[in-house]
Amino acid sequence: MTAMMDREAFEAALRQIGAERYHHLHPFQQMLQNGQLSREQVQAWALNRYYYQSQIPVKDSHILARLQTTELRREWRQRIIDHDGQEASEGQPAQRGGIEKWIALTDGVGLDRAYVESGAGILPGTRFAVDAYVHFVQEKTLLEAIASSLTELFSPNVIGTRVRGMLEHYDFISRETLAYFDKRPVQAKRDSDFALEYCLENARRPEEQEAVLNALRFKCHVLWAQLDALCFAYVAPGLTPADAWQPGTAEKENPRS
Amino acid sequence: MTAMMDREAFEAALRQIGAERYHHLHPFQQMLQNGQLSREQVQAWALNRYYYQSQIPVKDSHILARLQTTELRREWRQRIIDHDGQEASEGQPAQRGGIEKWIALTDGVGLDRAYVESGAGILPGTRFAVDAYVHFVQEKTLLEAIASSLTELFSPNVIGTRVRGMLEHYDFISRETLAYFDKRPVQAKRDSDFALEYCLENARRPEEQEAVLNALRFKCHVLWAQLDALCFAYVAPGLTPADAWQPGTAEKENPRS
Repeated sequence: MTAMMDREAFEAALRQIGAERYHHLHPFQQMLQNGQLSREQVQAWALNRYYYQSQIPVKDSHILARLQTTELRREWRQRIIDHDGQEASEGQPAQRGGIEKWIALTDGVGLDRAYVESGAGILPGTRFAVDAYVHFVQEKTLLEAIASSLTELFSPNVIGTRVRGMLEHYDFISRETLAYFDKRPVQAKRDSDFALEYCLENARRPEEQEAVLNALRFKCHVLWAQLDALCFAYVAPGLTPADAWQPGTAEKENPRS
Repeated sequence: MTAMMDREAFEAALRQIGAERYHHLHPFQQMLQNGQLSREQVQAWALNRYYYQSQIPVKDSHILARLQTTELRREWRQRIIDHDGQEASEGQPAQRGGIEKWIALTDGVGLDRAYVESGAGILPGTRFAVDAYVHFVQEKTLLEAIASSLTELFSPNVIGTRVRGMLEHYDFISRETLAYFDKRPVQAKRDSDFALEYCLENARRPEEQEAVLNALRFKCHVLWAQLDALCFAYVAPGLTPADAWQPGTAEKENPRS
């Protein structure tokens, strides 16, 4: 049995997982931000990641349903609002949610919106990985479900690099196309500060600390496996499964609209 | 809306899915049976597929729990017996189950048994695909759950080719190592005859026929994605995720025992 870590050691162990396993290290992510992908490969990324984005509020709703206090639910529901946005109301302008902004991204790279939203052309590997995440937060302990969100600890630093790289290298990418990422660093920091504090406080036995670490490893695999699938299908060997999106298809009728 | 197919057309549509999407077409499967894999790559296959084998009776137990007649349950429980085997009893010798025979296969290729059974080194892509199958039979209609087993329609023809190819090309593979496959063609034919008849009889509307076809497509993806993950991690580019089995590790202490 491993020994209980103190707060600092436990947080350091969590951050070490990110340093070693977060998907910023994946070759597909590197190629994306270094301008080494074709427009079609960027389309494949945008299309497949839409499915991930679309399931985030589903995942968070499952967690919300397991929280037993108003205080915790108030905190967690903000994630759902961030992803689903809200309509205008007295004196408040409408706010686009993360999913709507991701659709702006798939629009921006020239994909047909109805096709993207249908999920018809996503890779099986994308669906299996994302659905594994949605099931994880239902089937594991609440502590593990919350811990699986901790990849947000690592995203703020990476988003800036990715956005700069994509704007620099791809003439078909505009700042507006990438508007999804504008607010994510602030939101992700707020969310992960909360989730980190929750895990540091609520993992009170060595095996609970280990479960938290494993939940974060699991989530890193969820992100990593999505990029594995993209690489395999659209970079090399380029073996695209039956039904999955084929480059050159599902283009917007008027790509400049 | 598509029109209702008659029995012959519906069965032909199901068999067409196998002709186009069953994993006998996957490059990894071709390499396996053509002797183009290294011993380590065959080990990776055996290790990862063990997890699939281990979850088959779990999957079938979920289906069993949804069957509402003794007749159906008697039929379906045989699958669980086949995979879990049975102990000797009065006058009856013990029967090794499919899982035990798969362990003989991983033994035969020199992998440490405890490591295999732990599932510790399997690829995330394997786990996500297999778990997607287990969730599918819980969450979809019973008709779809049963239909997802119909890949067994296609396995009897393929098993012979695979076994012959592996025995011919790999000196580290013996007939005993591949004993798992000895009974599978007969079992798979019996099981898929039943499941096919069930689907032909119980898909009574066009949308139910389409759901059955989609369930079979889904299952083909479950098998295919497992080979994608193996290819990506152990053939090319050989990008093995953190925690996954690394070639040269988890060898049996005495490979000839």
